[in-house]
Order: sequence, then structure tokens, then C-alpha cells
Amino acid sequence: MVLYLEEKLQYYTMDLEISHAALKELVVANRILANEGVVDAFGHVSVRHPKNPERYIMACSRSPGIVTIADLMEYTLDGDPIDQQGRSMYAERHIHGGIYEVRSDLHSVIHSHSHAVIPFGLTGAEIRPVFHMGSTMLGPIPIWDISDKFGDTTLLVLNMEQGRDLARGLKHGQIALMRGHGCVVGAETIKKAVMMAVYLEDNAKLQMQAMQMGQPRYMTAEEIRLCSERIGGDLAIDRAWEYWSIRAGYSDI
Amino acid sequence: MVLYLEEKLQYYTMDLEISHAALKELVVANRILANEGVVDAFGHVSVRHPKNPERYIMACSRSPGIVTIADLMEYTLDGDPIDQQGRSMYAERHIHGGIYEVRSDLHSVIHSHSHAVIPFGLTGAEIRPVFHMGSTMLGPIPIWDISDKFGDTTLLVLNMEQGRDLARGLKHGQIALMRGHGCVVGAETIKKAVMMAVYLEDNAKLQMQAMQMGQPRYMTAEEIRLCSERIGGDLAIDRAWEYWSIRAGYSDI
Amino acid sequence: MVLYLEEKLQYYTMDLEISHAALKELVVANRILANEGVVDAFGHVSVRHPKNPERYIMACSRSPGIVTIADLMEYTLDGDPIDQQGRSMYAERHIHGGIYEVRSDLHSVIHSHSHAVIPFGLTGAEIRPVFHMGSTMLGPIPIWDISDKFGDTTLLVLNMEQGRDLARGLKHGQIALMRGHGCVVGAETIKKAVMMAVYLEDNAKLQMQAMQMGQPRYMTAEEIRLCSERIGGDLAIDRAWEYWSIRAGYSDI
Amino acid sequence: MVLYLEEKLQYYTMDLEISHAALKELVVANRILANEGVVDAFGHVSVRHPKNPERYIMACSRSPGIVTIADLMEYTLDGDPIDQQGRSMYAERHIHGGIYEVRSDLHSVIHSHSHAVIPFGLTGAEIRPVFHMGSTMLGPIPIWDISDKFGDTTLLVLNMEQGRDLARGLKHGQIALMRGHGCVVGAETIKKAVMMAVYLEDNAKLQMQAMQMGQPRYMTAEEIRLCSERIGGDLAIDRAWEYWSIRAGYSDI
Repeated sequence: MVLYLEEKLQYYTMDLEISHAALKELVVANRILANEGVVDAFGHVSVRHPKNPERYIMACSRSPGIVTIADLMEYTLDGDPIDQQGRSMYAERHIHGGIYEVRSDLHSVIHSHSHAVIPFGLTGAEIRPVFHMGSTMLGPIPIWDISDKFGDTTLLVLNMEQGRDLARGLKHGQIALMRGHGCVVGAETIKKAVMMAVYLEDNAKLQMQAMQMGQPRYMTAEEIRLCSERIGGDLAIDRAWEYWSIRAGYSDI
Repeated sequence: MVLYLEEKLQYYTMDLEISHAALKELVVANRILANEGVVDAFGHVSVRHPKNPERYIMACSRSPGIVTIADLMEYTLDGDPIDQQGRSMYAERHIHGGIYEVRSDLHSVIHSHSHAVIPFGLTGAEIRPVFHMGSTMLGPIPIWDISDKFGDTTLLVLNMEQGRDLARGLKHGQIALMRGHGCVVGAETIKKAVMMAVYLEDNAKLQMQAMQMGQPRYMTAEEIRLCSERIGGDLAIDRAWEYWSIRAGYSDI
Repeated sequence: MVLYLEEKLQYYTMDLEISHAALKELVVANRILANEGVVDAFGHVSVRHPKNPERYIMACSRSPGIVTIADLMEYTLDGDPIDQQGRSMYAERHIHGGIYEVRSDLHSVIHSHSHAVIPFGLTGAEIRPVFHMGSTMLGPIPIWDISDKFGDTTLLVLNMEQGRDLARGLKHGQIALMRGHGCVVGAETIKKAVMMAVYLEDNAKLQMQAMQMGQPRYMTAEEIRLCSERIGGDLAIDRAWEYWSIRAGYSDI
Repeated sequence: MVLYLEEKLQYYTMDLEISHAALKELVVANRILANEGVVDAFGHVSVRHPKNPERYIMACSRSPGIVTIADLMEYTLDGDPIDQQGRSMYAERHIHGGIYEVRSDLHSVIHSHSHAVIPFGLTGAEIRPVFHMGSTMLGPIPIWDISDKFGDTTLLVLNMEQGRDLARGLKHGQIALMRGHGCVVGAETIKKAVMMAVYLEDNAKLQMQAMQMGQPRYMTAEEIRLCSERIGGDLAIDRAWEYWSIRAGYSDI
């Protein structure tokens, strides 16, 4: 499969002032999230512009599993496209802008309808790290309910006010559930955000099963602190990234 | 894989007075429903004839995952074939005719044994939208029990009287569960019917898990109204359709 | 993939006095059962010799998902090979011989560790048809416990006495669970046995989920009788067989 | 796919004084464990050096699903590489060294985050053989909690003291759960370890489901003894290995 046209690539690379490697990383992140079951036809992942913190890069309105470099667009934090070229845009892009605006420490954001987390958002049960790979979520995950501030809505985050409110819903953490909708994950890098999103889903699945068997023993705060530092290190992330990339069809990595 | 013979296509296109694009859409719908796990060896999808509301188009008796354009047949609402050409027919085609006859607002119908919905039909638990993608089902889903009117049967819908009764079982909605059997989904277009069928299954799965964890918070009536309008719009449906088509092998889209 | 050598095929065809089509059907059944998740590395399917009811045909000791025609062997009902040619044999072949001996109405037998049925065998909960496709099992499924007659064993059926006892455990039905082990399915034809085995697994899964939600409404005895006749007919079976064959790689059908 | 370079192979074969067949077996074990869902991006499998019991062979820090012969490294029991060649190493290699040191009867070790076993470790519920394929685990599986001796940690086994403690946690058995982490499986051979790891996962899944339905009937101690001898024999293991190898892409076996 030809994933992108080389000439197109050069064009976008110049336009966005981002290296080929950085753009490709974002494309691969899209494909991994689809291939590992974090996103389906919907959901999206973005990265803050490495040279301009007031901008971010994200695909046009296309399912993550089929995103290519030619689909990547540059946005202001308010969600305005720099060079739209007629492409349609994710309606919920304000999730990304809101978080980048409120949280200067976060440089990559994933929004998904990751299945195992949704029942927690619906029942108010708290997702907490139950196994070491879940420690990257750092602590119990807050549930953001759009109706708390905005009443009856589409449940979608459709403007910057809602995006900023969601960002505050992270409560200094990096993950929030969105009631009746899904979740949002923010991290320092794309690779780390993907790692967190994959294992958030696994942790939720395992916790749900354990809760049906009895009272799960959760990780202690200190275990979470020690383990997340280790698991969140480059060595672990790079090993997983290499594998997930190959599974998603990027055999040249 | 060659999906159809061009000459055959031309023949059928003329015969049915339907465009190539419309026929192909129905074939792709068949493939998507199989590939996304809504149907297995059984189940079917039809579309009302765009130029003759008293007719509909559906495959001959073949599993949706392997339907081609050459398998498409034209039927009267009573389920009589216009040009059978020796092909065997779905015994339950009266599901489709019954709904098209009773419900002039519906132009595409899917019948499936979609797994997650069946336990609801068996226990009388009500499927209700728990997450935004489930809002397309509009409200709680009625359960139609063929034995209410017809006593002990094969559970299959084998004649127009049963088909019409099922159509009335929709109760002005677009989805009904069929006790001990599966469900039926009707919509204005093929693409919308597929979207509803895919997310009905997801909603049922998530609701089932949430019910095991506690009392799920359901979407409010107003949230459902607002969200279904949005999710049911072309932008969302086209994004999903493009992705599902590619996953089902239609790389030329 | 070359599934068999033509010259080998001819040899076996002559040796077994069975048509190429019949042998191929048994090979395809092996592949379908693996591909549809009924068997894993273990499990087996046999057919009674069409010209000699005192013999049956089954693969040598090889996982069903990779069986070819060259693996097929002819056995006496006692499990003695007619022409072993050094091939190793399934230790549990007496399941097949026992059933063919005791039940002259059954001509194909499947033994599997089909996952969803095992928890029923472990807890004594009764599998009963909950949806129309499950009606082929005919009624509640008896649980055969090898320890009832043979005390502590390997749980495996390793001789004719055990095979005959299992056959009697069918209690005039066609399916029995084997406690702590799996199940056995017998039918008039290979295709029907495969159909029953696939939907036994589905029925068990759906029933398990429904039991967690409340009290499932089971099919009535009359519904089972009417529906099993219909579903067990050639039209339904041939539709499923065509699809499953193609999914398992037999695109020439 | 070219899995390794022949010249590299020759080099490593000489270096490690292990036959090509033995090295390939370890590579295939890596691939099978990934393909059958026992390991994901993380987890590892090793074999004791056949000519030097004070050494073991294991891949460098790479996901099992993409390990090749060129990734194999030789270690002392203390986890020091014999010839690192700049390759990064699994941080938790001391799991392997600890077990090989403490348990001279074990010659292959698998560490995984096998999903179904984790909820048992979290709730203290005991995994016990419920079906014949689970008999290879021999008895109830002990749960090793790293915090019992080491207090708050990363949960990872990062030094020999922890590795030896885990080895003692096996309590004369061959499997131990690791609370909040996964499990470890030790066996006499690579093939047997893989067999045990695959069916440990299945047994845990089936037991979990049975526990939700009622009180499972567990295998008796004598059934476990008789069955494990049989299932653990070469005939059963070789049949499964052939199948799993082919599924994992090793069609030349």
C-alpha cells in the first residue's frame, strides 16, 4: 500500500514546518489506535505543533485507521484551519484546542470511544490502576459530564468553551472519562499518549472483570508513582511502538 | 477479487432501472454488515426501489459477506420476485416487504441476529441509548414477540401477515428486537441503516456491561434528540462508511 | 495454498471407496470448525463410511485447521485403522466409534472443546435453545460426566467402553456436554453437524449473557420442533456452508 | 517474510553452541505466544542453555511477536549478557535467572500479562483446573505479591533477589500469578511451557465464566494427575505446536 505521495509529503512538510518523521509519527499513531481497537470509525489524535505551541496538527475528518500524511491539517488552538484546502474537519476538534490552551504541559491528545471505559463513565465507578501497565494513568480517573455545565447537549464537544471545560475536567491529571461518550488522554508525546490509551482500555477491562469476582486490590499510590515512571520511560514505549507499528502495517520501521 | 462481471452489471442495471452506484452501495452494505460482525451466515439488507416505492432490492439467498451485484433481485412488496432466474430467495424477505408497506418513511431495512441485542430480547430488559453513538436508535427499543399474535411458530417471519405485524411492532420507531431471534432496523437510507445497526450492537454491549457494574445513567430524551440529529448527519455517516468500506475490501472508494 | 496432491487424492479415493467430493467435504468441515472457533489445536470431526456403516473416516492426529485429504484415515468402529501408514491417531477416536455403534441414525460426529459450553458442564446449568439458530440442538442438553461410571480418569475417552457410555449419554438427543472437557455433536450429515456445533456455541454464549441479565425466556418445545425442522433444512445449511467455506479459504466452491 | 539472515544465524549458532533447531524453536515460541494472545507488546520467553545450565537464552528487548534469531542473547543466571552487541535487554530478565537458579527442574520460562489470569491475582480467587487442558497447571496456582517482601515497588522484577523470591513463590509448582502484573510459567521444555501458558489463559477464562454461573466443579487431584501426564505428553504437545506454528506463519514446519 502506498501510504502517501512523496511530492505531497514534501509540500506538507514545508507548509507545516514539521519534519517528515514527526508527521509520519502522527499518521502511525492514527493507524495504531485503530489497529489496537482504541478507536473505531470515530476518534482522533493530535500533536501540538513542535515549533508553535499555539497550533496543533490533526487529520481532516477521516477515520484514524485510514489517515495518511496528506490528511494532516494545521489548526490554531481555537480550531481554525491554517490551510483547509476544502477538507472537512472533525467537529470535536475543540477537545484538542481546549486542552492545549489550558494545559501547557500536554503536547498530544487522543479522543476515543474506547469501549471498556464507557461503562465506568455510565455508572460512576472509578477506573483505578489495577495492574502495572495501567499505572500510566497515574490515579483514579475523573468523569467529566458535559451536562454539569451545559445541560442537555449532543454530548459532543463542539466549541472552545466546552473544550476548555473538558480540559479543566482533567483535574491536573492526563485522562478524563466523558459520560455517555468516551474519554480523552493527554500526554507529553504522541507515543506516550498512545501507550496510555491502549493500557487504559486494558486496565478498564481487567478491573471490570475483577470487580465481578470480588474486591480488586488496587495499586498503592507509591506503586503507581514508581511504576508509571518506569513504564512511561522511552525503553518500554519504544518497544511497544515498534511492535504496534509493524502490526499496523508499517514494516519499514 | 473480482466482485462482479461488468457485463452482468450492465444487464442488472438496466433491468432494475437503478444506477450502478446504488446497486454497489447495497452490495457494500452487505459486506460491511458481515465484516463489522452485525450479521453472520444469516441476516439480510434491502433497499426500497428508488423509482418504484412498491418494489425493493435485496440479494438472493446468500450470506451477506459474499453477496455480489449479480445476486441482487427485485421484489414486489409481497415478496414476489420480478425475475427470479432460478435463484433461491431469503425465506424471511417478508420482514422487508412488511416494513416497506406499513412504513412509507423507511427506505432501507436490515434484519440481523446481532449478538448483543439478543439477551435483551430474551429477558425483556430494555435497550436504551447509553452513549452518543447509540442515540441513532432514538429511544427505548420495543421487543416484538411473534408468539403474541401467532402462537408457537418457527420464530421466522415467513409471510406478509407476520411481516406487517413486525412493522407495527416498530411502534413509530425504527428498530425492534425480535424475541429469540434478533432485530430489525429501518432507516431512510442504506448508509443510515448500517450506521444504526453497527451502533445498536455496540450500545447493547456497553449497556450490558454497565448493568453488571451498577445503574447506568441513560441519555436524556433531549440529549437523544440533539445527538441523533448530529450523528445521523451525512458528515458522520460518510466518514464511517468510507472506513468500513475499506475494511470490507472496497479499496477503490 | 495447495491443499492436497492430486495423485495422493486419487490413491485415497480408491482406497476408501469414497468420492472426492465426500472426502473434500470432511476436509472443509475440519477447516470451518477451526475457522469459526469451534475447535482449536484439539477436537475432531468424522463421517461414517457411506458404503460401509461399520467404518468411519477421520483425520490422523492433526489439528482440524490444517487437515488435508492426505490426512484422512479409515477406521473400524472399534477404532482400528484400516491402513495406518505410520500416521499417529487421535487418542479419543473412540468417541466416534462409540456413537456410530450405538446410534445408527448418526453419520457424522464432532468432538470439541467449544468454549461457551464448558461453563455449563462445570456448573450443571442446562443449555437450552434461546434463539432460533439454537433450535437445532432440539432440547435441553444432557451433561455426561465420565466419573459417574469410571471414577477418576484423564477425562479423555480412551476406549470403546467409554465411547459407548458417552453415546448413551446423548439420551436419544444429538448433543452431550462432557464435564470438564467439552462436548460431542452427532448428526445425519457432516454439514448438519457443523451447523449444530457452530450454533451450539452461539446459543451457549447468548444464554450465559441472558442469565446474567435476568430470567431468559426459552423457546417452547413446539417452537423448537418447528424451527429445527426449518433451520435444519438444506436451504439454510447450504447458505451457511457456502459462506463458512469461503471464509475458511475454499474459494473454489 | 525473511525471518533471519542465514549468515547471522550461523554466527549465533556457533556463538551460543546451540543448534539451529533449538534457536528456531525459541523464536517460534515467541511468535506463537504473541499470535495466541498470551503476550502483547510485553512479556518474554527463555530457555536454559542446553549445554550449560548456568546460562539461558532469551531475546533482547523486543516484543515477542517480532523476535527473530538475530535477537537472541545468551545470559548468565545473574542476567549479565555474554555478548550484548549494544542490544537493549528486558528489564525483568531476573524472573528467568531467578527461576533457573532456584529450580533446577525447569528449563524454559514464560513471563506474560496473560489477561484472564490477572483478575484472579487482584481478588485472591484461586485458579484451579476446571477442564482437562487446564490440568497441565497441576494444582491451584499460588499468587505471589511482590509487596509481601519488598513493600511498594514498580511491581516489576528488577533484580536477582526479587527473581529468586518469585521462584520460591512457585511453591514447588510451575506457575505463579504475580499480583497486579501477570504470571510466570516454568516447564521442562519450551513446547511444554507454551502449552501450559496457552491453556492457563483458557482455563482462567472458563473458570471466571463458570464462577459467574454458579459453583464450578473442579477437577479432582487424581484427575489432574492422570490428565496432566497424558496432555503433557509429546503427542498432544506436538499436535498443538504444529498448528500454532503454522498459524504464526511458520509454514515450513
